[in-house]
Amino acid sequence: MRIDRKRLEQSIDELGRIGETPRGGLTRLALTDDDRRGRDLMVRWMREAGLRVTVDQMGNIFGERAGTERLPPVMIGSHIDSVPTGGKYDGQLGVLCGLETIRALDQHRIRTRHPVTLAIFTNEEGARFQPAMIASGVMAGKIPLEDAYNARDKDGLRLVDELERIGYLGAEPCVPRPFRAYLELHIEQGPVLEEDGLAVGIVDGIVAISWSRLTIHGVQDHAGPTPMRIRHDALVAAGGVVAGVRGIAGELGGDLVTTVGNLTVHPNIVNAIPGKVTLSIDMRDPRSETLDRALGRLDAVVKEACAREGVRYELEHYWRVPYTPFAPAVVAAIERAATASGARHRHILSGAGHYAQYMAAIGPAGMIFVPSRDGRSHCEEEFTPMDDIEHGATTLFLAAVDLAGRA
Amino acid sequence: MRIDRKRLEQSIDELGRIGETPRGGLTRLALTDDDRRGRDLMVRWMREAGLRVTVDQMGNIFGERAGTERLPPVMIGSHIDSVPTGGKYDGQLGVLCGLETIRALDQHRIRTRHPVTLAIFTNEEGARFQPAMIASGVMAGKIPLEDAYNARDKDGLRLVDELERIGYLGAEPCVPRPFRAYLELHIEQGPVLEEDGLAVGIVDGIVAISWSRLTIHGVQDHAGPTPMRIRHDALVAAGGVVAGVRGIAGELGGDLVTTVGNLTVHPNIVNAIPGKVTLSIDMRDPRSETLDRALGRLDAVVKEACAREGVRYELEHYWRVPYTPFAPAVVAAIERAATASGARHRHILSGAGHYAQYMAAIGPAGMIFVPSRDGRSHCEEEFTPMDDIEHGATTLFLAAVDLAGRA
Repeated sequence: MRIDRKRLEQSIDELGRIGETPRGGLTRLALTDDDRRGRDLMVRWMREAGLRVTVDQMGNIFGERAGTERLPPVMIGSHIDSVPTGGKYDGQLGVLCGLETIRALDQHRIRTRHPVTLAIFTNEEGARFQPAMIASGVMAGKIPLEDAYNARDKDGLRLVDELERIGYLGAEPCVPRPFRAYLELHIEQGPVLEEDGLAVGIVDGIVAISWSRLTIHGVQDHAGPTPMRIRHDALVAAGGVVAGVRGIAGELGGDLVTTVGNLTVHPNIVNAIPGKVTLSIDMRDPRSETLDRALGRLDAVVKEACAREGVRYELEHYWRVPYTPFAPAVVAAIERAATASGARHRHILSGAGHYAQYMAAIGPAGMIFVPSRDGRSHCEEEFTPMDDIEHGATTLFLAAVDLAGRA
Repeated sequence: MRIDRKRLEQSIDELGRIGETPRGGLTRLALTDDDRRGRDLMVRWMREAGLRVTVDQMGNIFGERAGTERLPPVMIGSHIDSVPTGGKYDGQLGVLCGLETIRALDQHRIRTRHPVTLAIFTNEEGARFQPAMIASGVMAGKIPLEDAYNARDKDGLRLVDELERIGYLGAEPCVPRPFRAYLELHIEQGPVLEEDGLAVGIVDGIVAISWSRLTIHGVQDHAGPTPMRIRHDALVAAGGVVAGVRGIAGELGGDLVTTVGNLTVHPNIVNAIPGKVTLSIDMRDPRSETLDRALGRLDAVVKEACAREGVRYELEHYWRVPYTPFAPAVVAAIERAATASGARHRHILSGAGHYAQYMAAIGPAGMIFVPSRDGRSHCEEEFTPMDDIEHGATTLFLAAVDLAGRA
């Protein structure tokens, strides 16, 4: 039994045209008009596939294919929002492989004991509203609904107002739903599967992640008549932090990755010495202890760089998720499915956060990776070959049948 | 003979309220509504002082006090636009001391052989439209009028449309006007006068300035699953450039100042490796040869930082003004006036560009500096004590009388 490759490919093409960039990437930020158009298309397809569609208070969409018994569903989920000038595979592919699983179940006339539910989660990327994966934070009871509603984008628009505007402020409570298993197919976003020549990664868990924000207060002044000896330049200090953050990964080694992705200068004009810089620090490692050491080094790096330039700062480690292991039973089911699908595969860790991470706190969860060309993602060049997608989707389909149980 | 300190102080207060920031600074960007309100107030005061007011094609405002003979005027000019969260002294003070000179001439019933003209120039700061001092660039024939009209702010608004919108798109040609002398009073924007305990600086000339822009093309990717070994991070390279630019000043020493004031990251989100960074480099020195050496070092610094990270770049040295000496006769007149005013004074160089720089290419020009507290400017903390302002304004007034010639 396999999925229908051609049908899946057509869906990828069609959804990918909504928010497509001139260079073939995707800009479909959460709760924008393009996100609405993408959601509308998905809901139409879900209804055409006979699913019962509901929307919850956070705009998460659920489409249920009934089982033969009143049991918790096998849930297959991902997201359709993207980062700015991102790609057509991150998120969207998981949702469409989930839809293809439903369609393949129908095509093969398979009835399952457990229902199979397709889930589309709101604002996974965190590119527009912070934090990322805010909807599952609410679902898991870690973020109060009101706080999530009051999250604002850079133009000051509130999440709840944008949900309402695009017509996806649903009535169902956003609370943990019981499930038999949660499955998410996603692009690897790293180079490992491609380098190993494999089609499928069986994800054992998700690395620990910490996010910090740093505000540096320098002395804003004129770039001309201010002698070097009296300067306190926030950007010079920030440059030292950027170099230092890179250095932490070199120093601690292993799988640790460290990134300054966001940096904003004030007043940001050619002839003024920067008076203020804010920047983000993202650090990830499979081992919590390594992340602890990295955070200690970060404190020192920031202190040194700011002392050198004589500037004040505030450093806040505001978000941290521990290492998330996936459920052994789900991982085993995925491995059986990968083997049955004929896909060459290996076990792997995820370096990126996913909804599966929050779902793992609620019930048994697992993930399937497919390769990313050159390891690239969050960019317009994001690409996964259709051969690998077919293997991944078939693995997802077979794992779903396995876990939902043929009636 | 002195100016009227109280009247001048009241004018500074009144104009300073237009665009005032909560922390006592000024945000009055060129051709905004606040700039219009500031211009309207100045025009009202100029008309009340009996000046004949005209506006040219670039929105420069001229108010002429007739002389007893048909001779070129002594022109006193500066600007009333500010940088974002700038101060109340940069530009505005020069215009108001010019107005006070006119008022003092009337009060003392002084008739001059040459007319005395007060000039308010458009967009001196270059904070909204680039380049800085665009209006004098047009006046001196160095920038075609059409190019200046098509300059766009960050929202894509054209300079000419904004000039028209605020009602200052005048009919007079923007061409070099003959003048007997051009005088500009300005805050020093550096620490020298304050450190020396002096009220007035007699400016011998303006340092050479170069502006460069650098675009770094890294590889945008996901901050999680992308191992350090395959990264090409545009911001890491930019951090190296920021450190290197600071290093050039340390290396070459002397009066050289080097600044990265503008730096913009793309896509600028926490969890994406920066794919693109643009930044500005501002370098200044009294000696052209030092600036040449600094530009050579900059080329090397950028090449090294970008090679280290394996990223492409484009570096453009797009604006350069040579050292501008002021006219000895005007400098001498200012020195006589400073001595007569009783102000403690010294000769000094300007580290900042001023309209006087362009005017020096048209005719004899000179500048008067007053101190900046802590050497600070282009910030809300900008401050000059009223005692020093009084000395500076009296120096300007006496120099104008000297150069215009009592009838």
